[in-house]
Amino acid sequence: MMSRGGAKVASSLLKAARPRLFSTATTSTIRSMSHETSHLLRPAVADLASPSGMSGWIWTTRAPAIGGARFASTVTLGEKTTTTEDADPKKAEKESSTGGDAGGDKGEKGIASYWGVEPSKITKEDGTEWKWNCFRPWETYKADLTIDLSKHHVPTTFLDKIAYWTVKSLRWPTDLFFQRRYGCRAMMLETVAAVPGMVGGMLLHCKSLRRFEQSGGWIKALLEEAENERMHLMTFMEVAKPKWYERALVITVQGVFFNAYFLGYLISPKFAHRMVGYLEEEAIHSYTEFLKELDKGNIENVPAPAIAIDYWRLPADATLRDVVMVVRADEAHHRDVNHFASDIHYQGRELKEAPAPIGYH
Amino acid sequence: MMSRGGAKVASSLLKAARPRLFSTATTSTIRSMSHETSHLLRPAVADLASPSGMSGWIWTTRAPAIGGARFASTVTLGEKTTTTEDADPKKAEKESSTGGDAGGDKGEKGIASYWGVEPSKITKEDGTEWKWNCFRPWETYKADLTIDLSKHHVPTTFLDKIAYWTVKSLRWPTDLFFQRRYGCRAMMLETVAAVPGMVGGMLLHCKSLRRFEQSGGWIKALLEEAENERMHLMTFMEVAKPKWYERALVITVQGVFFNAYFLGYLISPKFAHRMVGYLEEEAIHSYTEFLKELDKGNIENVPAPAIAIDYWRLPADATLRDVVMVVRADEAHHRDVNHFASDIHYQGRELKEAPAPIGYH
Repeated sequence: MMSRGGAKVASSLLKAARPRLFSTATTSTIRSMSHETSHLLRPAVADLASPSGMSGWIWTTRAPAIGGARFASTVTLGEKTTTTEDADPKKAEKESSTGGDAGGDKGEKGIASYWGVEPSKITKEDGTEWKWNCFRPWETYKADLTIDLSKHHVPTTFLDKIAYWTVKSLRWPTDLFFQRRYGCRAMMLETVAAVPGMVGGMLLHCKSLRRFEQSGGWIKALLEEAENERMHLMTFMEVAKPKWYERALVITVQGVFFNAYFLGYLISPKFAHRMVGYLEEEAIHSYTEFLKELDKGNIENVPAPAIAIDYWRLPADATLRDVVMVVRADEAHHRDVNHFASDIHYQGRELKEAPAPIGYH
Repeated sequence: MMSRGGAKVASSLLKAARPRLFSTATTSTIRSMSHETSHLLRPAVADLASPSGMSGWIWTTRAPAIGGARFASTVTLGEKTTTTEDADPKKAEKESSTGGDAGGDKGEKGIASYWGVEPSKITKEDGTEWKWNCFRPWETYKADLTIDLSKHHVPTTFLDKIAYWTVKSLRWPTDLFFQRRYGCRAMMLETVAAVPGMVGGMLLHCKSLRRFEQSGGWIKALLEEAENERMHLMTFMEVAKPKWYERALVITVQGVFFNAYFLGYLISPKFAHRMVGYLEEEAIHSYTEFLKELDKGNIENVPAPAIAIDYWRLPADATLRDVVMVVRADEAHHRDVNHFASDIHYQGRELKEAPAPIGYH
């Protein structure tokens, strides 16, 4: 029986030897999957971004016509193709222009997927290939560093006070555990921060479906928040590597927090959003302390990871300090969105009645 | 005590009288929320779309600088503003250029939200305002109607056969309930179809967080699928209005299916994706039958809803038949993505190892 390490080695060998394992996923695509080393590759990209976010980044897409790519993949791999008239008496109306090549994956082959849906190849302006699968050039942006970091929702109602003091009391054990290790703190707390947006987005999605209602854009706004926090994690895990007990802690906390927030959102979305607003206020404070430690030299101001440079459109010589600045600005925006969402509920309204602030993380 | 109806009337009156209830959300934004009547407004938009999906639609964004919008909203509403130095001894580093205006919402006022995060105003090429909050012009696309509709995954393994026969057996009561009422069928089944993508996306999101791993783009791919199915629902509910017992059925089915799929995905994502692949194959068949009924004249071929025209970049004189064609093409793509995802699992790999097909619904 292969050990896990042995299996991994074999798997890597197999991957190297069989680059066409997944349809037309070429070696360049497989190279792009090596995110572990990606931060060592600093793209030589001029800062092209513009404030409005949509223009400035130029990319080219080399995407074969989708129909062509699918059938080409089958022919290239030399698979036997059958039409469904052989396998299935149901005659679906054929829209395809290459009808004869339609076929089914026998499954037994276990070599390649007939369904090989080839992702477009995207290159940056300088000709280098876009490295990232989880975001595209048009999803990058320049953070608004003029955002007001000192805004604070003064808790007045009973629920607000509970939310506020819950967050404040959670700060105490957190500070005890992390001390001044802000890199580690950022990495681990982003695993928590990425949960509320996803839970909220999902619950709003289900509500929109069963009530046959429009969403007002809030599903997208909350899912964007979750994805943005996850990008913070993807960035910080390039600079702070989690130890085994930290991983164990993260898994435990996720199990508890996910379910607690899920229930909390079902019972009182007003409270849930308010609490997230306060959590973001604390995050802003923590990132400010992080900056202080960097400026004092207690934490090494390493070069910014490549993923951060691409995602936030930072200059090629950006450092960790620049990253913390833009992440902090993101948290300020999340604070605003969540306090806003809570205020809408306080007005006795539903979120869908006020257009959501989409498009800026 | 106001009755619910009375409260709704009062609320509408209040909304009409106080258009600035939510920061600078102007009457035009509030008008844009009236989605119920939106399908009566047919935008006079030439078909500008291009096959690659990104160019062709021209829009202008009138977005005030974000910082300016926030502070302007407070001034406009004549609210008392305080700085947090008054309220909170914590001195956060001030990045804002208009520091003096920072303040907190007292909460007691209950009138307007200080956090008023103003969404950008977007206009189409013809100058009309973009009506939709849940999608933006750059998220619209032209469906690929050349996609092969007859592709079918021949079930070979035991799990595949269970998935296939589960779907086939579910077809029987569904056909019994809907008969040839395909409009109603589409509307109700899209409430189910939008669940798997969201559940899968959420579980992958949580996995990415707790394992400190990249996602390969699959979170986004699955969430996109869920949102696309939800857009199908938003479209079909403009043509088929649900009756009370249909709404009750949808709520019940969501409760059962959401939990069942959630558990199924935890236990065997391979099986879950395979089942969704087969469900989509059935959806393609149903939409083909829908087209037959439209062509026979048994179902009235009404003009396409405005939301569909904008979302799929259809010509201004598009009809329900055109909508069904593009929706069916979407389902074919979902079929491919899910069978592909299942195949990846069958290879003994994780989804993140193969780049996800993002960007085409």
